[in-house]
Amino acid sequence: MSDSGDAARASIGLAVSTVIFALRADDGVADPAGPADPTDPTERAEVWLPLVRRIREPQCGRWALPGGMVSVDESLEAAARRNLAETTHLEPDYLEQLYAFGDVDRSPDRRLVSVVYWALVRPDEAERVTLGENVQWFPADALPELAFDHNLIVDYALWRLRTKMEYSAIAHAFLGDEFTLAELRGVYEAVLQKPLDPANFRRQMESSGAIEPTGGVVTGGRHRPPKLYRYAGDVQLVDAGPLTPRIPA
Amino acid sequence: MSDSGDAARASIGLAVSTVIFALRADDGVADPAGPADPTDPTERAEVWLPLVRRIREPQCGRWALPGGMVSVDESLEAAARRNLAETTHLEPDYLEQLYAFGDVDRSPDRRLVSVVYWALVRPDEAERVTLGENVQWFPADALPELAFDHNLIVDYALWRLRTKMEYSAIAHAFLGDEFTLAELRGVYEAVLQKPLDPANFRRQMESSGAIEPTGGVVTGGRHRPPKLYRYAGDVQLVDAGPLTPRIPA
Repeated sequence: MSDSGDAARASIGLAVSTVIFALRADDGVADPAGPADPTDPTERAEVWLPLVRRIREPQCGRWALPGGMVSVDESLEAAARRNLAETTHLEPDYLEQLYAFGDVDRSPDRRLVSVVYWALVRPDEAERVTLGENVQWFPADALPELAFDHNLIVDYALWRLRTKMEYSAIAHAFLGDEFTLAELRGVYEAVLQKPLDPANFRRQMESSGAIEPTGGVVTGGRHRPPKLYRYAGDVQLVDAGPLTPRIPA
Repeated sequence: MSDSGDAARASIGLAVSTVIFALRADDGVADPAGPADPTDPTERAEVWLPLVRRIREPQCGRWALPGGMVSVDESLEAAARRNLAETTHLEPDYLEQLYAFGDVDRSPDRRLVSVVYWALVRPDEAERVTLGENVQWFPADALPELAFDHNLIVDYALWRLRTKMEYSAIAHAFLGDEFTLAELRGVYEAVLQKPLDPANFRRQMESSGAIEPTGGVVTGGRHRPPKLYRYAGDVQLVDAGPLTPRIPA
């Protein structure tokens, strides 16, 4: 940031986009009706995301990540939140910067750098996404050809989800503060894309010390209601970047 | 990225900066002569970084991270590498995107978003940094007041270094392919800022399965030359972002 820049250097557009991941059942229906319920063991959850159909050029008609240009008077995260609210009505608790995509030829009509955020949302948040002709949920592993480099962006976000994040934070983001072991296992199975043995999973979780029983059970009149658990100790849920109190001044 | 933007929206400048971390001995000298040698147990290494003195406004005279504006025809990483080479002559093996800093008021004269990279460099790389009146090494935990929000950026990078990265990747970046147990312990001590018991460290490392002897020893005529080790299996050293072969197409 040592130069104020000449005209040519200033002609880079700055945008934000957000990858929203939720877990929902893959019911084989092209136009799914609602988010998955990970408390229901008959539903095999998968990772889905909402996309927005472009209604102007370039690449009008293609599906894309929700996003838009950054205004000169708003921060990057504020721009991501504003664009999310405008397109999907979503205000996610878990929103984190993922990566800045800046290849020279990633947009056909001008140089555009996109700072990409990702949101991991609970079922109650996912339900608030306003669907319509131009906003739909898609399974993250079976997307159509998206606008720009958005297929690449989703692949990168999936790779991060599956390899780099701590599972506790993932599960916490998808489930909330309290959860059953079946719900937690459902999150692991959806993210890792494989079934896990319930008895082994229970043993591993209980011996890990990472979770603890809340003392409560799922209400609703079942004969043997499942126990509720929470994470033991603090879960550092969101890497909100450098402007949070945990960073020494 | 749904709008092509009006004139006001396009007036955000895009810059890159790089935090370069190396391990070197804290010898108490204000103008340190060279990088630390982690093979020397008498040297207590710490995390240092080279900074560049600004020679133009705004904030002329302050020390800052090496960086500059992104040209319209170069990618973000290419811009980071070009600016590093121009200011410090460094071409680091380990260069990774860290975070995009985009607060509205972070630069006094215009709106400027900086995509920040970080480089973890070995002693032989650090030696190539061309020092001079306007390029000097500083201890990362005792910096002067830097230009813009660069103190905040360095604090964030230190936090990431100490809490989020896998230690294997850190040590690998600072040491190279082969290393002694004393060198590896020196990296841990420098990053974690505390002395570690050599015998305990050896036991933990040897039982972890993460490292294995190469069969070789340090050459140079010592009576009991230290054994050399390497990481067992592949170390995913750099998160080079989404454009590497490991991401499915």
